[in-house]
Amino acid sequence: MSGQGMNYRYSSMGALKDVRRETLHDALELTGAEVSINRMAAGASVPFLHSHKLNEEIYVFIKGRGVFQVDGEQFEVQEGSVVRVDPAGKRCIKAADDADLTYLCVQVTAGSLTQFTMTDGVVHEGAPVWK
Amino acid sequence: MSGQGMNYRYSSMGALKDVRRETLHDALELTGAEVSINRMAAGASVPFLHSHKLNEEIYVFIKGRGVFQVDGEQFEVQEGSVVRVDPAGKRCIKAADDADLTYLCVQVTAGSLTQFTMTDGVVHEGAPVWK
Repeated sequence: MSGQGMNYRYSSMGALKDVRRETLHDALELTGAEVSINRMAAGASVPFLHSHKLNEEIYVFIKGRGVFQVDGEQFEVQEGSVVRVDPAGKRCIKAADDADLTYLCVQVTAGSLTQFTMTDGVVHEGAPVWK
Repeated sequence: MSGQGMNYRYSSMGALKDVRRETLHDALELTGAEVSINRMAAGASVPFLHSHKLNEEIYVFIKGRGVFQVDGEQFEVQEGSVVRVDPAGKRCIKAADDADLTYLCVQVTAGSLTQFTMTDGVVHEGAPVWK
């Protein structure tokens, strides 16, 4: 299912167990981020180290286990792990040998957020009506 | 587990089935986004409509089912659903009566992304070494 209105657009990736890599920037016409949902097979590794020019990356691990590397240092990740990497960090990910690894990666311009939640949100009067 | 280096910081929310609401901006010292992971109990609804001043929101649903409302229009969401809402959209979410609803919400400054992935990433020579 997908659809849109003046102020929104939605789509579906299907069940997460079947996702390999989905990117949302173009699918949802995003203007402030690229978001990808990735599932690496057990034992697989991204075959290269990469950094970024302008973008901060935020990783949210939602299933499985693996190892994260930044600038030669390594730490374990699993469901519930969250990671920020600054543009200059040389990063890579490897799935554990016995478990797929599913995670979201959010790319945003470093330093671009000026306010959020309580300082950016506006609450409107009237309870929502559910049809 | 949590830790940090010159170009990164990581932490853990624990198992997603036990998360109620976790926010990453302060925990990871993010500079380009706020990211929250939310789990709404079956039948629960956010009790108000809200919009934003500057921020685009991106929702990624990772478990359960529910209904999303923007500007009075409603559509169903479930595992794998993804939604962009522009700052002005008056939005709300309700979990289905018989299923918890778990989702990520990413807040970013609308219009702030100038390049991403192939145009922002830099691949470094040499395969990653796994310890």
